[in-house]
Amino acid sequence: MLMKKLKRSARLVEMTHFLLSKPHTLVPLTIFADRYESAKSSISEDLAIIKEVFDEDGIGELYTHAGAAGGVRFVPRSAKSDALKFVHELCRMLEQPDRLLPGGYLYLSDILGQPTLLNEIGRMIASAFSKRDLDVVMTVETKGIPLAYSVAQHLNLPVVIVRRDAKVTEGSSVSINYVSGSNKRIQTMSLARRALKEESRVLIVDDFMKAGGTIRGMMDLLQEFRATVKGVCVLIESFDTEEHLVDNYISLAKLSGVDLKTKQIHIAPGNYFSDRSDTWK
Amino acid sequence: MLMKKLKRSARLVEMTHFLLSKPHTLVPLTIFADRYESAKSSISEDLAIIKEVFDEDGIGELYTHAGAAGGVRFVPRSAKSDALKFVHELCRMLEQPDRLLPGGYLYLSDILGQPTLLNEIGRMIASAFSKRDLDVVMTVETKGIPLAYSVAQHLNLPVVIVRRDAKVTEGSSVSINYVSGSNKRIQTMSLARRALKEESRVLIVDDFMKAGGTIRGMMDLLQEFRATVKGVCVLIESFDTEEHLVDNYISLAKLSGVDLKTKQIHIAPGNYFSDRSDTWK
Repeated sequence: MLMKKLKRSARLVEMTHFLLSKPHTLVPLTIFADRYESAKSSISEDLAIIKEVFDEDGIGELYTHAGAAGGVRFVPRSAKSDALKFVHELCRMLEQPDRLLPGGYLYLSDILGQPTLLNEIGRMIASAFSKRDLDVVMTVETKGIPLAYSVAQHLNLPVVIVRRDAKVTEGSSVSINYVSGSNKRIQTMSLARRALKEESRVLIVDDFMKAGGTIRGMMDLLQEFRATVKGVCVLIESFDTEEHLVDNYISLAKLSGVDLKTKQIHIAPGNYFSDRSDTWK
Repeated sequence: MLMKKLKRSARLVEMTHFLLSKPHTLVPLTIFADRYESAKSSISEDLAIIKEVFDEDGIGELYTHAGAAGGVRFVPRSAKSDALKFVHELCRMLEQPDRLLPGGYLYLSDILGQPTLLNEIGRMIASAFSKRDLDVVMTVETKGIPLAYSVAQHLNLPVVIVRRDAKVTEGSSVSINYVSGSNKRIQTMSLARRALKEESRVLIVDDFMKAGGTIRGMMDLLQEFRATVKGVCVLIESFDTEEHLVDNYISLAKLSGVDLKTKQIHIAPGNYFSDRSDTWK
């Protein structure tokens, strides 16, 4: 890294960019001190300013760790009030009558295709799972991919994509059959052997959950890799919850009813906003 | 927006975050001036500091537009030297012998699953197409999705995903058949009618191109939407280039040869680094 003597103002811009681009990464203070030929005390003052703004604006938290192995770590967070406001807006978008598809599904591709919306959703989900000590974010193709990628970005974790097709050109793979919860059909999903280390700690993310068969399938597949499911999160859960195949999950929004005749869709914030203090210990 | 009187130091942190999170968006100076109860001249000084750091660090450019409809716009860019260094590192990763898959394909899922690598790749591609006046970024499932999403993030554009399956649950769709260039099989791809407005200006992105059949298919599909292809970019092009079905494209890396016996892979920076001044006007 080049050394340079920068004024505080330029240093703040550079450090802000640096920290934002490396979430969940411990950055030793010496990196900044060396880079700017500054005393650690000046760097600490800079970080205090950044921390205050990140706090106040609901961008995230800066944790400083003291000691020889110490440094600073940026953890993206969503403030609950901002998140709730955002999800209310999302619900209004989701209630547009022309989203209703056969089978009670909702057209989501436009929402999942918008980087600004996805970024906000990803930050919210990452925020809820930021203390789980995770190794990877996993999803199944296709619509869950942008969502998983956005979550992974904020957690600084790799993404693993389960394929619906067993004939993947990714070397040897593990396939399982699972029963789709809503239509009771037997389906296949597979994951390349090399895509996931044994005993990984996994966050499962998907866009939509009805009975939970697909997520249940991913959980079964993970057993083949002796992996641990550390969390499950879906953007939207559907109201067919009587026979849910997944117990412990977080949803950002909940589809509570659909009138196929009038095309009315009822959707409200999900259990993300409930008290989560005793779940997912 | 809440008004607040902030010191320059805190203002710089906040403005840096704001601009980074809204690439390719014209932000009127009055937004900052109102927000901070500051004179436009102070805001302009702040922006000059940010601009200088963004320039020097190869983060991107800040364009200021004068006049009543004026403001500031952040355009992410990659410096050519940084990009070349990054692609050389990428090539070394890609030459690992165990990446070689049957058919001369390379295992890429680990690279495409790393948010930090993807972010860099996305910024490079966005940088090359930042002046094309685009409406959407398009790709075909599955492996191209994270790549397209990363590019779209830096261009602040929506992503449109073409499905390989005609039975999509996304309402009415347009399907085409195309001949896969490498194995000459007839395949299908489809796109939901509502996924793309007519006459859109499209950037096509994919992870791997051999003969170009899949990209040619996307181009044919786009004709059904009376859309214009404004650019094509692939992460890796393969050496089977004699019969390329696509003329005008940018590649970040080029697979120049594979020895299936010794598992040696030869890969070098792609035409991204050639003089592109007269292509894609």
